[in-house]
Formats: sequence, structure tokens, C-alpha cells
Amino acid sequence: MRIPVDRKSSVPLYRQIEAFLRQRILSGSLAPQTRLPATRQMASDLGVNRITVENAYAELEADGLLFPRTGSGTYVQQPAPLAPIPRREPGAPWPLWQQEIQSAGGTEPPVRPSDLLEAAGHADPIDFAGGSGDCRMFPAEEYRKVLQAVMRRDGAAALEYGEYQGYAPLRSTIAHILASQGIPAHPDNVLITAGSQQAISLVVQLLLRPGDAVVVESPTYSLVLDLLLSLGLKIVGVPADEAGMQVERLEQLLQQNHPKLIYTIPNFSNPTGACLSLARRRRLLALADRYNVPILEDDYVGDLRYGGRALPALKALDPGGGVIYVSTFSKMLMPGLRVGFLAAEGPFYESVVHYKRVNDLATSSLHQRALESYVTVGRYQAHLRRSCLIYRRRRDALTQAVARHLPAAVRMDPPQGGLFAWLRLPGDISSEILLPQACRLGVAFAPGGAFFPSGADGESFLRLNFAGHPPETIDQGVQRLGGAIKRLQLQAERSASRLNGARGRTP
Amino acid sequence: MRIPVDRKSSVPLYRQIEAFLRQRILSGSLAPQTRLPATRQMASDLGVNRITVENAYAELEADGLLFPRTGSGTYVQQPAPLAPIPRREPGAPWPLWQQEIQSAGGTEPPVRPSDLLEAAGHADPIDFAGGSGDCRMFPAEEYRKVLQAVMRRDGAAALEYGEYQGYAPLRSTIAHILASQGIPAHPDNVLITAGSQQAISLVVQLLLRPGDAVVVESPTYSLVLDLLLSLGLKIVGVPADEAGMQVERLEQLLQQNHPKLIYTIPNFSNPTGACLSLARRRRLLALADRYNVPILEDDYVGDLRYGGRALPALKALDPGGGVIYVSTFSKMLMPGLRVGFLAAEGPFYESVVHYKRVNDLATSSLHQRALESYVTVGRYQAHLRRSCLIYRRRRDALTQAVARHLPAAVRMDPPQGGLFAWLRLPGDISSEILLPQACRLGVAFAPGGAFFPSGADGESFLRLNFAGHPPETIDQGVQRLGGAIKRLQLQAERSASRLNGARGRTP
Repeated sequence: MRIPVDRKSSVPLYRQIEAFLRQRILSGSLAPQTRLPATRQMASDLGVNRITVENAYAELEADGLLFPRTGSGTYVQQPAPLAPIPRREPGAPWPLWQQEIQSAGGTEPPVRPSDLLEAAGHADPIDFAGGSGDCRMFPAEEYRKVLQAVMRRDGAAALEYGEYQGYAPLRSTIAHILASQGIPAHPDNVLITAGSQQAISLVVQLLLRPGDAVVVESPTYSLVLDLLLSLGLKIVGVPADEAGMQVERLEQLLQQNHPKLIYTIPNFSNPTGACLSLARRRRLLALADRYNVPILEDDYVGDLRYGGRALPALKALDPGGGVIYVSTFSKMLMPGLRVGFLAAEGPFYESVVHYKRVNDLATSSLHQRALESYVTVGRYQAHLRRSCLIYRRRRDALTQAVARHLPAAVRMDPPQGGLFAWLRLPGDISSEILLPQACRLGVAFAPGGAFFPSGADGESFLRLNFAGHPPETIDQGVQRLGGAIKRLQLQAERSASRLNGARGRTP
Repeated sequence: MRIPVDRKSSVPLYRQIEAFLRQRILSGSLAPQTRLPATRQMASDLGVNRITVENAYAELEADGLLFPRTGSGTYVQQPAPLAPIPRREPGAPWPLWQQEIQSAGGTEPPVRPSDLLEAAGHADPIDFAGGSGDCRMFPAEEYRKVLQAVMRRDGAAALEYGEYQGYAPLRSTIAHILASQGIPAHPDNVLITAGSQQAISLVVQLLLRPGDAVVVESPTYSLVLDLLLSLGLKIVGVPADEAGMQVERLEQLLQQNHPKLIYTIPNFSNPTGACLSLARRRRLLALADRYNVPILEDDYVGDLRYGGRALPALKALDPGGGVIYVSTFSKMLMPGLRVGFLAAEGPFYESVVHYKRVNDLATSSLHQRALESYVTVGRYQAHLRRSCLIYRRRRDALTQAVARHLPAAVRMDPPQGGLFAWLRLPGDISSEILLPQACRLGVAFAPGGAFFPSGADGESFLRLNFAGHPPETIDQGVQRLGGAIKRLQLQAERSASRLNGARGRTP
């Protein structure tokens, strides 16, 4: 057997041999029951001392990967087999407490449009259902180098717990970014989290108990609705229009429901892309203050603006301690970084830091350190500017494609920023029924239902992520969508006419 | 001004100039109000086209880092100042909902022994209070290379969300590791989490509601107690001895409290280092089954064994669906990796996957991918064996040092594995009072109180982490601890004799 051994390496020879064999055995390329060369033979093959080979074999025997047959040599052991999913006697019931979870049910996420699209098996599928930006734009190579530099600079320190609040230099960089957006923040008011989703779930779990009421604009971010439901909270939806949450309707709902929290996405709402007007921002703050309700401001893509004037964040208008601000690097860079943050003050900040600690101790510090240097040398800002230029073109391409390929009855307000456009279908078409039809033609979108506290309200809406594809692809995808809509309308007309025909025949 | 420009780089020249200036400005080495060379001047200094310099300046102006004074050139802008921590008018009260959090109080973590030690300012402090292994042993350089290889291999994919359950190859590697420990597990029963702390908090939050009762052995892991308290749960402690939880006492407590969960650390308990006996393991499973209570098995260092026979995990004895198994790579490798996992089946597994998703969407996949290749090529196993050898010696060093330097009245059972030793002080000494004294002599430990549902029970106990220091340091640290104990005893005697003296004088 030929094993590459590196005599210059700091790794002892027997470890090199061991690692090589271990890899071959675990990967299966050395099959169970294979007989290994005798140690003397192997030693002379590799030109190493026999003891070296014996040590390597011994290590592997100790791990149950090799076994000796007295007299006949050393063999590859069957690796510990994967057990079948353990069950009581087949068909026997789960423990009662598990059955209760079962009967509670409703915990599995619904089938994802992207999976439907894949299942449809179109040769060249176009997916508008995604939730993040265009990963292909992310300079992974550049980031790899930053990771390298950080590991070289910090060594093991980059892999220790670090501060509970998060890596201090990154917190102060974030404070600077926020300050440049008019949001008063101090590094000691910033908590780094595993993406904004964790920030939101920490806030909600800290401030609310099962049965409490929470106000959201309707429609709103589907995963937050999932979170609120899974916590057994009462969701109070405030209708939203092209200027965001209809704050005019809020006061009555506050009086009726005594909510413990108001969750809102004032900039480029997910899913509608709408921005909350300045007048409504001020009114929202006044109401929250009067009725003593904290505001959770989710600013997940606030700085992805393609037009219009930036409005001050709620946090920027807050006299202090009333607004909890949440944002993330995931949408702008890579979702898998899982680095988000919240900014808050007062007793709440103290408790959320503690609560984060008991929830997962700390967020992996390597990405925090890498992000910090990535942002500080201006790469992040450059990437952001690049993204804005590219996404604006894609937004424009979508606007034109919708005008070109979709029936006039389909309504869409071109978003001023963010990743999403929100379409309203003609009354007779359901986005749920449209989706499978569209997937067959090779295009997927997010049906509106998931974004409403009560799904039925979403029947005639759908969300398109225009950030993920170049203009040509967007045009083609919308064309397919138009085709799917026309087919549905045709079917509707046919069945209608059949109905009339049938009527005609009745005496 | 001299700026290093690399004409061979793929980064455009104007970006290189921009990044250089940006870094200088943000770092403050280019002070506000500094006048930059005119673009023509700078261009000839650097031997680049004037447009290049103008583009660089323009980018920095766009970001508010430079500003032009007509006629007099371009100046460094004051970077957006850090706002003070925002407050309503000084001294004005926080919003009511914040005041309620304040009055609820008790959320700040107690002062950490390590901080006390640092504050004491000893020239050469020795910290036995830590919770993890010896980070200096971790082959950071080796891991850096694995990270590199993974980034090169997977590129941006290593930075996307990945599967909700966690990176599939790592889940199957974990399933193999568990199988080799006799724990039946399938990759589709494994959920990757942000360390075992998140796994535990997901399980607890999913199964319990405020006011529910949870059974723990007393003493147990302090951070889990913090978690249970922060969730408003009723903690029922079962006394533990050198053979773990006194399961004989459990049934009565189950009848009285109807707990919704039993949390236990059967191997090398944190803090005591004790292992649950086989008889008690079987009895615990039988009781949990009879009273329909799920068991949460925390096996945070199960494979760090220095002696004795390995006992089957509760999960290995579970007929199926009754035990939720939690473990981590943090203790063995680097805490900052934040990669742990749980193994469970049935409806519970489905819901915990969903619950993890709404809590933080997914765990950063880069470390998952790096760990997977690190483990598969056998580096993890090698590191584990190395750690066992080294930690065993340190355990032995501690045992000898305790015998040599501490009063005979101090009790300690040498642990068979793990990271911690548990000491009982003579009745007249409180570990809380001992700590500051010890810190002044240059040694810190974890006082017992934090590990008991009711802190008072911990008065005369303390936890030593012996894994973090070489034998000589351990000996010296224990010597200092002995010194601190003797001082306290002396003080006690003196005040006692003064008391007697005083009595003597009374008529």
C-alpha cells in the first residue's frame, strides 16, 4: 500500500499514516474485512520504522477501526453502523408527552415555493421566492482573505467566547454606522446577535408571555409571524398601505388589546417594500409612549435605497429607551454569516444581554472579527454601493417586465429600495393556486398568505424577490408568470362559459 | 502624501487609494480638518491619472469622510460622532415598561470570579474558575488551514443559510460518533445548535411554560439554573452525591411537583465531576417513563474520561423518544466555535427543528463545515486523545496538591473525567468569603452557591477547573488557596478568643 508520508512535516509519521488510513476507512474506500499489509511489509513499503506502523495500527485499533486476527493479520473493522431511527416496538406509541406535541401539531413549516419549483423539474427554473440578496455578488474570495488575516492576527482568541455583548470593535463600528444614519447609539448599547432573527426572538421572549398581545403591520415578515405563533402570542394586525402601517387605526387597537409590544418594519417592508411615512412615524412614537408599549424596529435593509429621501429611523426620533432597533449584515452580505445586532438602552438592554447569554452564551466571534475588519477598511461600504446600483437596475427591470408581461389588472407599486416587490392579482385569481401552475412554467414566488396574521387575507397577493437575478432573467421570469396567470384566467372563463351553456340548456 | 498602490492588484487603483484614506480617517491617524493634497498633486505623487484620485475623493465625500471647501481644496470631515447613551432629560424616568423590568431586577449576572481576580491585581494570577478546557492546547493553526481549505472548496456556499437541521455531512459524522458510543442516532435525528447552551434553551422553552416545574440534580450547571430562573420556571432540586442524582428521592418529588422536564448531567457532572451510577440510570429512565416526563441528558464532556469504566448514556438505554441528548464540541476544542447538537426523535424532533428556525434561522455553516472535515480526517480524535492524557496528569496534580496544601478537613473526590473538581470546606468557612481573600493571594475559583437552586446550600463548596493549567501552576494555585483558608481560620480563632477574653472580663 502506498501512503504519502512527509518527513519534513511537524506531524509525526505514525500520525500521518494513521490519518491516511482513518480517512480511507471512514470514507469507505478501504472496505470492511480488508486485510492490511503486515506491519513489517508496510514499514518497508514506506521506508519507515516498523514501530511507526505498529503505533498507527494501534491507534486505529483503539478507535475500533481496525481489529487483529491472531495469526492472520490486521483487518478493517466494520465502522459502527448507523442505527435506524430508534423506536419502541414498531408501531408502538410515542411517550405521552410526545403525543401531546403531536396533537398540538402545526409545527412543520409549509412546503417552500423553492422546493415546489425544484419538484416541477423545469430545465431552467427562475426563483423569485428567496428572502435574501444575490449571494453570487458576495466577494467570497475577498472575505476568505479577511478571515485568513483575522485568524493569523488573533489565533485562538478568534475562537474563544469573547464578550457577551459581542466583539467590542465591531460594536463600536456599528455605533459609527448608526450615528452616520442619525441613530444615537453607543457601543455599550449594542448587542451582537446570531442574525436579526435571534435579536427579534430574544426581544419577544423577554417582553412577552404566552397569551400576551403583540401588534404587527399586516402583512409583515412571515418568519416573525411563525415565531409569535410558536410562542402562543395573540397577534393583532394593523392594516398597511403604500405608506406602511395605518397608524391612524392603531390607538383603538391599543385600547382594545393592551399589547406588550409593537413590531414594525418601517423601511422597505418585507413583504410589501413600502416605507412608513414621516407623519406616521411621529404618530406611532407618540402612541407607543402614551400607551406604554415598546416598539421593536426591524431595519433589515434600511440602507438599500434606490430612490426617494431617507426618513429618520424610529430609533432616531425616540427620546430614549422607547424603541428597540434591530438590523443585520445578512441581507447585504451573506445570510450564513449570521451576524445581526440590536441597539437599546436602560434596564431592557441589561436584561437582553443577560437573556442572550443564557440562550446561547455568545455568538461565534470569528465572523464578528472578520466583519469588523471588512467594514473598517471600507469594503462593506463599497459592496453596499455596488449592490445598490445593481439592485436598482433589477428593480427597474422588474417594473418594466410587469408592465410588459402581466395583465393590466395586476397592481404593483415599484419599491424605493430593499429586495421585494408586492403584487396584487385580479380578484378571481388565488396566489396559492397560481404557484403550482407557475412552477410548472419554471418560475416561483412567495404567495401572500404566509405574510398575514390570517392567511386568507393574502389570497390575491404575492411577493417577488427581484434582487436575486439579472435583468434578462427577471424579464423572462415575469413573462412565465404572465403565462401562468393567463392560463388560470382561461380556465376560469371556460368553466364559466360551460356553466352558462349548462344554464342555457335548462328549460 | 505617499500611498502604496499595487498596479498588479485586481482592485482598481482608485479603490486602493480610497481604502487607504478611509482607514486613516476612521482610525483617526488623518485628523479632522486635515487638508488633503490637491488631486493634481496627489496624482503626480502616486504616478496615477488625476481622474483616479478624483474618483477616490468622490467616494469618500459621498460617505461624508471628506468635504470640499470651494477654492481651498478637500478636507477630512469630522467622522459622525458617537452619541452619548441616549436618555430623556437627564434624570427623567425610563418608560414605564422599562421601569417594570428594572423593578423585576435580578437580571445582571453576578460579578465573575475571574474579574475579581483581575481586580485584585496579583502579579501572576492563577484562575481555576473557568468553564472550558485549555484553549492554549487547541491547534488554532491547524484549524486555520481547515477553514481555508473549506472556503476554497465551498466558496460562498460556506456562507449561505444551509439546512435548518445543520450541515448534513456534519450531522452524519455526529451520528457515527454517537453510534460508536452505543447511542442509536440517525443524521435525521440530529440538530446542530449554537453550542449546547442553545440546545438546552430550545428544549426548555419548547417544553415548558412559565410556572412549570423542572427537576435538576443539586448542585448542577449554573448557567442552566440562570436560564430556568429567567424563564420563570419552578426549579425542583434532587440532592446529588458521588454517584450523581439521588434517584431514590425522585419519585416523591415527581408526585408532588408534576415536572415537565428532568435535566441531568450523568457524566462528570458540572460542578461535582460525579457520574450517575448504572443502577440509578436505569431507575431514572423507568421513573421518567412511568411519570411521563422527558429527560434532557447533558453530556458536555462525556468522552473526557481518565479512569473507570464508561457507562451507557441514558440515550443508549432509552427504548426510544424518551430522552433528549445534548452535547457540544466547545469544551473539547474551542468554546468560540459555538457548535453543539441535540439528538432526539418523534414529534419533538420535528418541533425543535422548527423552533430553532424561528429562533435564529440557522447556525453559521462555516464552522460546521470546518469541523466536519476536521473530525473526518481524524484530527478531532487525535486532539481528544491528547487532551485526555494531558488533563489526566493535571487531575492527578490537583489531587496531590490538595493533599499537600489544604487542611485535612477539606474534602474532595478525585473526578474520573471532565474538567472540574468539587471541594467541601470545613463547616466554619464560606466559599463566598474565601474568594476575595484567595484573589488577593492570586488564585480564583467558582464558589458553590451559583450551582444550587438555593444558593445558601453552596456556602461551603467550591469548584476548581483543573484542565486549564499545567501541573506546576496547579500546585502553586492550590498552595495559595491553602494559604487563604488558613488566614480565614486564623481570623476566626482570633475573634473567637477575643470573644472568650471579653466573656472572661464580664462579672
